[in-house]
Amino acid sequence: MTTVHVDTPGGRYPINIEAGRLDRLAEAIPHDATSIALVSNPTVAAHYKARAQDALGRSGKRVIYIELPDGESYKDWQTLNLIFDGLLQNRCDRKAVLVALGGGVIGDMVGFAAASYMRGIRFVQVPTTLLAQVDSSVGGKTAINHPLGKNMIGAFYQPIAVEIDTDVLKTLPAREISAGLAEVIKYGCIIDAQFFDWCEQNVAALRALDRDAVTYAIQRSCELKAHVVSQDERESGLRAILNFGHTFGHAIEAGLGFGEWLHGEAVGCGMAQAAELSVLVAGLDEASARRVHSLVHAIGCPVTPPNLGTEHWIELMQVDKKTEGGTLRFIMLPEIGKAVFQSAPMDELRQVLHKTAVPVL
Amino acid sequence: MTTVHVDTPGGRYPINIEAGRLDRLAEAIPHDATSIALVSNPTVAAHYKARAQDALGRSGKRVIYIELPDGESYKDWQTLNLIFDGLLQNRCDRKAVLVALGGGVIGDMVGFAAASYMRGIRFVQVPTTLLAQVDSSVGGKTAINHPLGKNMIGAFYQPIAVEIDTDVLKTLPAREISAGLAEVIKYGCIIDAQFFDWCEQNVAALRALDRDAVTYAIQRSCELKAHVVSQDERESGLRAILNFGHTFGHAIEAGLGFGEWLHGEAVGCGMAQAAELSVLVAGLDEASARRVHSLVHAIGCPVTPPNLGTEHWIELMQVDKKTEGGTLRFIMLPEIGKAVFQSAPMDELRQVLHKTAVPVL
Repeated sequence: MTTVHVDTPGGRYPINIEAGRLDRLAEAIPHDATSIALVSNPTVAAHYKARAQDALGRSGKRVIYIELPDGESYKDWQTLNLIFDGLLQNRCDRKAVLVALGGGVIGDMVGFAAASYMRGIRFVQVPTTLLAQVDSSVGGKTAINHPLGKNMIGAFYQPIAVEIDTDVLKTLPAREISAGLAEVIKYGCIIDAQFFDWCEQNVAALRALDRDAVTYAIQRSCELKAHVVSQDERESGLRAILNFGHTFGHAIEAGLGFGEWLHGEAVGCGMAQAAELSVLVAGLDEASARRVHSLVHAIGCPVTPPNLGTEHWIELMQVDKKTEGGTLRFIMLPEIGKAVFQSAPMDELRQVLHKTAVPVL
Repeated sequence: MTTVHVDTPGGRYPINIEAGRLDRLAEAIPHDATSIALVSNPTVAAHYKARAQDALGRSGKRVIYIELPDGESYKDWQTLNLIFDGLLQNRCDRKAVLVALGGGVIGDMVGFAAASYMRGIRFVQVPTTLLAQVDSSVGGKTAINHPLGKNMIGAFYQPIAVEIDTDVLKTLPAREISAGLAEVIKYGCIIDAQFFDWCEQNVAALRALDRDAVTYAIQRSCELKAHVVSQDERESGLRAILNFGHTFGHAIEAGLGFGEWLHGEAVGCGMAQAAELSVLVAGLDEASARRVHSLVHAIGCPVTPPNLGTEHWIELMQVDKKTEGGTLRFIMLPEIGKAVFQSAPMDELRQVLHKTAVPVL
């Protein structure tokens, strides 16, 4: 088993990575837990609910199960409230432990429910998508969407453990693997040029779910994310670099309607756009921008943004949480493996939005 | 001006107490704030909205106004969402500052909105009821209600300042003054026997809103609460004593429907019940229990609990956040000025619930 530790002001917690981890979930449950509430959705439950319930039951605690509808479009208050209903109907107290079994949507909602139920109870992340394993389950960002913006309502709230079973990726559709790889290559782009090279060389192995390649990609992604988060839990500075590609990506998701593109697909495309903007504004050379573009394409993500109309694009980006006093700011790359956070002049931004509104490959 | 400081792991903030403080609210707004969102309800707004807006405008920042319907029955997600709608429609960013102008309901909702909007923005408490000034605005407990329990969804989240204008109490109904005094005498009961004596001697002056008496009562209450909160922000131990009377009180509020009795009235009555239970379980002498009972009556709060039926009482109390593994636990007084947190045997609890289900005075 590989373990990566995350240090935050609120404490230290492990990310445990191994094949078959799902059967050893009881190890993550503290002795003083009064009950366990397992939360999942029908899609994941069909594959893994029984195994997770059995494994958690070995802790000797009462295990209740709460099912949420599947999909980004349900990442709202109404669905979140199903968790509160389940906890209250089952008289779960402050020492209950929530377990999030699913992808980023389940993890974000269970995390926010844990942050808010009785003003905060403990929770464990058991991410079942590659995207959640390498990104959303680590670092304590939890949220639900608001009709006017993605992830607008939430909390910084850390899990007590992240339990990653690499075997569960086998039941994922190829499209979700590609979406997850977008966040993997992101770490290469912003912080680790060597890892970017490694990703370029191992695209085929990663897409084929070669166990060693996947395990290393998850481990390295978690290490890099843990490194960033431990320095800046609340996104006051450094942590913002993890949002490379996300300002464009969120606009795509909001513009098309949440759930139309997978989050990772939107981020993949957004990274290609942010690389283009970096050429115009941050001094990235064109060859490097092409490498980002090609790698996004190689992992199987779209590189042609949807035509939302330039002014609508800008409007959608202005509700981004990184906006300050109305100025649009972006994570950009002066070179591969290095990120800066700066505002973009409207002319250059319009140039990128206009250029990419038609197919670019 | 009197200032009491609150120290928490998240930082230090002032409680500023003075007559006319409302006109100096700009002092509480940080220089880097991008905008200010003032939140209130129609009842409070009729008296103080214009003054608060003018005062905040003197900071030079944009001030937007968000109005919520008035009352405990609106302390729910739907009303909370009006704050998020207002913030997003006005493009308020992470450096916006929320200002809660109102009683405990406004303070609790604005606090939870601040904790959750974009995963946390700054907020200022401007409590306009005595209860909020001496209790709910201090200490960082924020929450909304759930149909199955009061304050079940929320966060521990500290304001950057609490601004108390003692003059605003003049427009409060007498019933709200009595409800606020319930929390004032609570501090005497649990932590400061001398202050309990002082309250007994100054009941008439407090109910008549004598400026010196009221200022001292607010200051001493805030000092005692700040002392407790600074030692235990997240209610893992000591802080629980602040819930003296609240397990009974919450059951009254839930049993009658939130808003039927004022929170302070329910707590007042609950303290009389908890004192009776303390005689049976915690060694409180009967004379002291009578003093608690008499003082609750003297400040104008009910001492006759509603007849909810003994088993329904117990059911209502079991969803209390202090419950652990199904056992009911209460804050009790071994003597006036001293509190303990312990479980109560069902027989003694039934005795108190049965006894107080009929008028006791």
